[in-house]
Amino acid sequence: MKLNDRGLLVVISGPSGVGKGTVRKALFDMPNNNLVYSVSMTTRPKRPGEIDGVDYYFVSEAEFLKRKKSGKFLETAEFVGNYYGTPLDKVNEQLDLGNEVVLEIEVDGAQQVKKKMPDCVMIFIVPPGKNALYERLRRRGTESEEIIVERIEKANREFKLAHRYDYIVVNDEVHNAADRIMAIIRAEHAKTERSIHKYMELIDEN
Amino acid sequence: MKLNDRGLLVVISGPSGVGKGTVRKALFDMPNNNLVYSVSMTTRPKRPGEIDGVDYYFVSEAEFLKRKKSGKFLETAEFVGNYYGTPLDKVNEQLDLGNEVVLEIEVDGAQQVKKKMPDCVMIFIVPPGKNALYERLRRRGTESEEIIVERIEKANREFKLAHRYDYIVVNDEVHNAADRIMAIIRAEHAKTERSIHKYMELIDEN
Repeated sequence: MKLNDRGLLVVISGPSGVGKGTVRKALFDMPNNNLVYSVSMTTRPKRPGEIDGVDYYFVSEAEFLKRKKSGKFLETAEFVGNYYGTPLDKVNEQLDLGNEVVLEIEVDGAQQVKKKMPDCVMIFIVPPGKNALYERLRRRGTESEEIIVERIEKANREFKLAHRYDYIVVNDEVHNAADRIMAIIRAEHAKTERSIHKYMELIDEN
Repeated sequence: MKLNDRGLLVVISGPSGVGKGTVRKALFDMPNNNLVYSVSMTTRPKRPGEIDGVDYYFVSEAEFLKRKKSGKFLETAEFVGNYYGTPLDKVNEQLDLGNEVVLEIEVDGAQQVKKKMPDCVMIFIVPPGKNALYERLRRRGTESEEIIVERIEKANREFKLAHRYDYIVVNDEVHNAADRIMAIIRAEHAKTERSIHKYMELIDEN
């Protein structure tokens, strides 16, 4: 019996190149989960095969900026001239249904989410060591040394943001990391601040 | 990889009759755990077959009171003329070894532990409803109605102490409850306040 029926907003972030996406995929592959993705809204043109409301919500720039101004996003970002954002109302709908909404985002976006929804669960994914991450960043593509150095410097800045998160999870082995995140979700539901309301009702009723 | 090597002090408490002991036993039966009991110290005479240091540490009343005065207990209680206490140094020894020390105690003792070791994990076990607990208290023995009423009144007072705990776990099914406590232990190790120190070392080193 769960004393907190509302879903949790779970923010998965961490330094660039740490493998956030792989951990998130492993998490969604776990049995009996009630995790859902949040579909982002974007001003980027729809590509062939993409479905509105499934891949993204596609909107015009004017529409996006109007929504942004009226506080309708959990977080927004700009990337090569297009806007991306997480619609607040869609997230709340899922949370009300009792689903855990998982956001896998960059550190800047994570901070925006924390401000907008302070009771979210902030998880920082880290590599088992700096060198492990440097190697990943090097292996990633065929980019010039300059770009690689830039990425490493960015990761070095991001490493220091761990204190802004509720939990630190090492991505030494992706299934360990996913397992630990599942444990965090179960534990968070049992936290007194989230469960005492329904507990008091239970005790008063019968 | 665990970023917090020190064990956790896990306090399991709850209203009288909720089944704390059963939950604790189910917890210790779980595979791959590193849970340990804390052996209490007592002034009660040793019974045949009991082993000093295994069942209890048996000491004289003078010795017990001396230790109590110098703050060497996590918590103490008096029961039918005998003293019982949890020795602080033994608990710290186990925590340093990386074992999780589980204390299953009454609500008064739990509050003493919280004061003495604020970073312990406080778990409040609750019944799925008031009536479930009343029935348990009635079924327990052949006591008079007066004693049963007294117990129910005690449980009613204890119900209201949930807000003093970090987590509320419903004992609807004992294995669910034990599972949830294991998730809490895993999550607590990943908490930023417990893991950031080793993480910073990891990042500085390599």
